[in-house]
Amino acid sequence: MTYCVAIKLNEGLVLTSDSRTSAGVDDISVYSKMHILDAGDDRMLALLPAGNLATTQAVLAELARELEHDADTHLGKVESMFEAAAHIGELSARLQRSYLGNGDRRGGFNPEATFILAGEIAGKSPDILLIYPQGNFICASEEQPFLQVGETKYGKPILDRVIRPDTPLDIAARCAMVSMDASMRSNLSVGPPIDLVLYRTGSFRIDHRLRFDQNDPFWEAVHAAWAEGLQQTLRDLPRFDWER
Amino acid sequence: MTYCVAIKLNEGLVLTSDSRTSAGVDDISVYSKMHILDAGDDRMLALLPAGNLATTQAVLAELARELEHDADTHLGKVESMFEAAAHIGELSARLQRSYLGNGDRRGGFNPEATFILAGEIAGKSPDILLIYPQGNFICASEEQPFLQVGETKYGKPILDRVIRPDTPLDIAARCAMVSMDASMRSNLSVGPPIDLVLYRTGSFRIDHRLRFDQNDPFWEAVHAAWAEGLQQTLRDLPRFDWER
Repeated sequence: MTYCVAIKLNEGLVLTSDSRTSAGVDDISVYSKMHILDAGDDRMLALLPAGNLATTQAVLAELARELEHDADTHLGKVESMFEAAAHIGELSARLQRSYLGNGDRRGGFNPEATFILAGEIAGKSPDILLIYPQGNFICASEEQPFLQVGETKYGKPILDRVIRPDTPLDIAARCAMVSMDASMRSNLSVGPPIDLVLYRTGSFRIDHRLRFDQNDPFWEAVHAAWAEGLQQTLRDLPRFDWER
Repeated sequence: MTYCVAIKLNEGLVLTSDSRTSAGVDDISVYSKMHILDAGDDRMLALLPAGNLATTQAVLAELARELEHDADTHLGKVESMFEAAAHIGELSARLQRSYLGNGDRRGGFNPEATFILAGEIAGKSPDILLIYPQGNFICASEEQPFLQVGETKYGKPILDRVIRPDTPLDIAARCAMVSMDASMRSNLSVGPPIDLVLYRTGSFRIDHRLRFDQNDPFWEAVHAAWAEGLQQTLRDLPRFDWER
């Protein structure tokens, strides 16, 4: 499993991802899922994958190869986030089909991968998109200004309650940390290090990139303050009739 | 879908359940899932079902029939919560098998039902148990003092963070409301009215039973205070380096 979130705000973008890759509880590895793609000075593109690690690595390698060899289509040429998502989706679906060439699903083999694509291309608004294994994709909306992949449920309520397009970037980044913290606590297959990226609209470069290892003091401080705040809020909730 | 929670505390038990039953988004009904079983003055037994409505109704009807006719085994005779769970599990599994008599799974037919059994029988400690469709079951523990059925993930983080055996009953009841609120907000198939039951150890009768309809003023007050408290806690979290 995996947990990645992208949040689209008026001020910019917030991205966070875990680093746990598991092919079963006895086969766990650490791979960062925060891929900032080097596709030119007029664009910022980030790809956050979930699903089959071989497929996601193959997609990333192919995207890099296309850029290096100036292929007919590559992420440095696409004119919109929509076009970038279509290209990545087509590539991902094609690679998955190739692994299933002879219908091989032995041992429950599943090459599916899902991606969040987030970024900005000069002349267009920043956007975040969720690319399905089939290659089709959706973008965020005013009402749904965030997208998630992987183990999404534990961390969703806090995002639902807090995130609006006008939420400040730093507040949204802390909200993403809290959402990740909830997912890690409730699901063993989501694990550190945690990557966190803040991007300001129009800058075309990452504003802040942080990595939190296990026991990181700042992460622990946020975790503790959040837990204490929740306890306090719970203690302060309206009383039942019989308590009054 | 459904969402039910049972919490086992030193002071007693907290139970909450939603009332939405759906056989698809175009076929939604209201059925309370909070069943307090009338099985004698020396015991309190509550059953919170999730899954196939016909199965859960058949189980409840059969349990009532056994009591009425003083069957060889019934919930008024069992000597422990463990024995009660075994009896209900056996009954549920038998009924499910009968519906699948000829292997009929047309239209994805699935008679499975899961139950939370909560209560106290004189001379024994209160307990909560989760009964699987197969008839086997688990109880709660010191480290895991709550059980959930249905759409469990959205409402789990707040329970994980807050609920301990020494949590006061009223605080735990509000925590259960918040957990239910998160599930309702994130999943349309969890819906009001919400039932909430508080039981004090050794009383053998329900201490408080509340029902919150849509737009209930107390529910709304808790919802609003919780949302505001979360926002405030988020605003008060430790600042990033660059904000200092």
